[in-house]
Amino acid sequence: MAVNNALERDVVVSSRVRLARNYKDIPFAPAMNREWAQETIRRAADALARQRETYQLIRMENLTNAQRRQLVEHHLISYDLLKFAELSAALIGQQDTVSVMVNEEDHLRIQALLPGMQPEKTAEMVFALDDALGADDNYAFDAQFGFLTSCPTNVGTGMRASTMLHLPALARVGKLSALLQAISKLGLTVRGIYGEGSEAQGNLYQLSNQVTLGRSEEDTLKTLIAATTQIISYERGARKALQQHDAALLEDQLMRSYGEFANARILPVKEFMSRCSDLRLAASLGYVDRDYAFIDALMMDAQDGSLSVQLGGEKNEREMDMARAEYVRAKLSE
Amino acid sequence: MAVNNALERDVVVSSRVRLARNYKDIPFAPAMNREWAQETIRRAADALARQRETYQLIRMENLTNAQRRQLVEHHLISYDLLKFAELSAALIGQQDTVSVMVNEEDHLRIQALLPGMQPEKTAEMVFALDDALGADDNYAFDAQFGFLTSCPTNVGTGMRASTMLHLPALARVGKLSALLQAISKLGLTVRGIYGEGSEAQGNLYQLSNQVTLGRSEEDTLKTLIAATTQIISYERGARKALQQHDAALLEDQLMRSYGEFANARILPVKEFMSRCSDLRLAASLGYVDRDYAFIDALMMDAQDGSLSVQLGGEKNEREMDMARAEYVRAKLSE
Repeated sequence: MAVNNALERDVVVSSRVRLARNYKDIPFAPAMNREWAQETIRRAADALARQRETYQLIRMENLTNAQRRQLVEHHLISYDLLKFAELSAALIGQQDTVSVMVNEEDHLRIQALLPGMQPEKTAEMVFALDDALGADDNYAFDAQFGFLTSCPTNVGTGMRASTMLHLPALARVGKLSALLQAISKLGLTVRGIYGEGSEAQGNLYQLSNQVTLGRSEEDTLKTLIAATTQIISYERGARKALQQHDAALLEDQLMRSYGEFANARILPVKEFMSRCSDLRLAASLGYVDRDYAFIDALMMDAQDGSLSVQLGGEKNEREMDMARAEYVRAKLSE
Repeated sequence: MAVNNALERDVVVSSRVRLARNYKDIPFAPAMNREWAQETIRRAADALARQRETYQLIRMENLTNAQRRQLVEHHLISYDLLKFAELSAALIGQQDTVSVMVNEEDHLRIQALLPGMQPEKTAEMVFALDDALGADDNYAFDAQFGFLTSCPTNVGTGMRASTMLHLPALARVGKLSALLQAISKLGLTVRGIYGEGSEAQGNLYQLSNQVTLGRSEEDTLKTLIAATTQIISYERGARKALQQHDAALLEDQLMRSYGEFANARILPVKEFMSRCSDLRLAASLGYVDRDYAFIDALMMDAQDGSLSVQLGGEKNEREMDMARAEYVRAKLSE
């Protein structure tokens, strides 16, 4: 079974770039009210209406909890956007690759997300979107500091570029914490799957730049790419070492995990993430014939929010875990 | 998925009856030598040659270790027959349902084995075979005691009638040891899967009569049938209770076990037996669509001896466990 590791998808789940932007003539988040919030949404929506691509405007207040969570699980919005649900909105592109959060911490959080190792292409997409939104030179911008933002940690480029990394072998051999410590010295930071403050699940780690001030967008991307490239080679080395140590045992463990995954009747979400991780590693080693697109979609679509939307309503925990198991079984037997 | 529980196969794996017989003019086992051993084999083979059914004569000294073990695993001979391998032989019927061990503890150990709950039919078969072998009134027989045997525990009827029971639910709810203690008061005894002194594996228990003296063959069978019938209803009750307690959890546990079983790459024999037990229970509850004949054959055919014969030679432990896993995978994907 040959696995297609194009775009380094064996290790890099996705690349993301987001820009923080604020309109210069509208109060920043702490002073935001309903009227200004509507104005922000209108401006962003109008600007995108002039684009070739169609963007769907979604006001958070119109969504059920499950629908909101589904957007978070698909990385189209952040949890933080929901803190201001009565004021906030999202503009989402057709391919689910670009989206604009309106009235999160900043007026605009413009983001692009692509599968695999594509930070530069992702950046191109987000800058094109930035041009479309800021065409009238209407952003809060300081000649010395750069873009002004609600939180000082984003001042400057306002850019956060990240790669989502799947590091099961480094986790297994216990080399992860040392590596992550070393990374922080490069001005990079590591977070869990849903960004800041979230827990690492399924051996997924989001690597992103810490610094936005005094460093160009180009340099930021270069540093991210260099560090990601390094980690890819470490992770691949660790996978090779695991196989060399005892290939049969590794295959046994991963295939047993796959067997449980494909046959369980009750699947708690934490276990689900860990089984997805095993499946992704098994696929990368050629034990299971599944492509990364399939696995990464499964990882999103069987989360509580997405499941609840499919089920037409939230259920109790046991029912959710049973629905998740049923969904996984159906998908894996496709 | 409807399961066919005919012959009470949901609980009773098989019924077996064996008779201990000795030629009156040949020394008993303790005084046996090569010459007499040949004479015993010749007599038994000659007697069966006059039967309609063809019996295969197998001298233990001509078999490899793996072939010997394979016969034990298929319950056609006992481990004890191998203690005297240079003198002993087996005569095996075409359907693997009747066999005669020659020069085990007694000159003849005549046995019949049928699937499910059929002690009476099994007894009929073994008595027909007994008549064929002892047609010339040539057995060591005492008017007061009955048949004389090498070990006093078999004197009398020389009969051991047994049922092999699968008791996973009673084991789970922890009611097994109390039950087995009660059984001993009925003059019955419980043993592991390969008879006397063997360990219980896969929740399989062999229930058989303890007493051969002062009790008729008919009474012995009646007692065995009554006790087995009782245990069947206890086990079925325990299965129902497990389902009523938490059906989803039970199905989850058994199906996860099935998933591991069908995907493992290394399967130690102890785990293999336990997985077979889970599979058998899962089938009886309708979770898995496999019949008992399939599962019970798998349980024998993936043992070390049978596997080694298929592989054309004994391998090391890891290789055996890998071959077992491969065999199970192939069978379960049929």
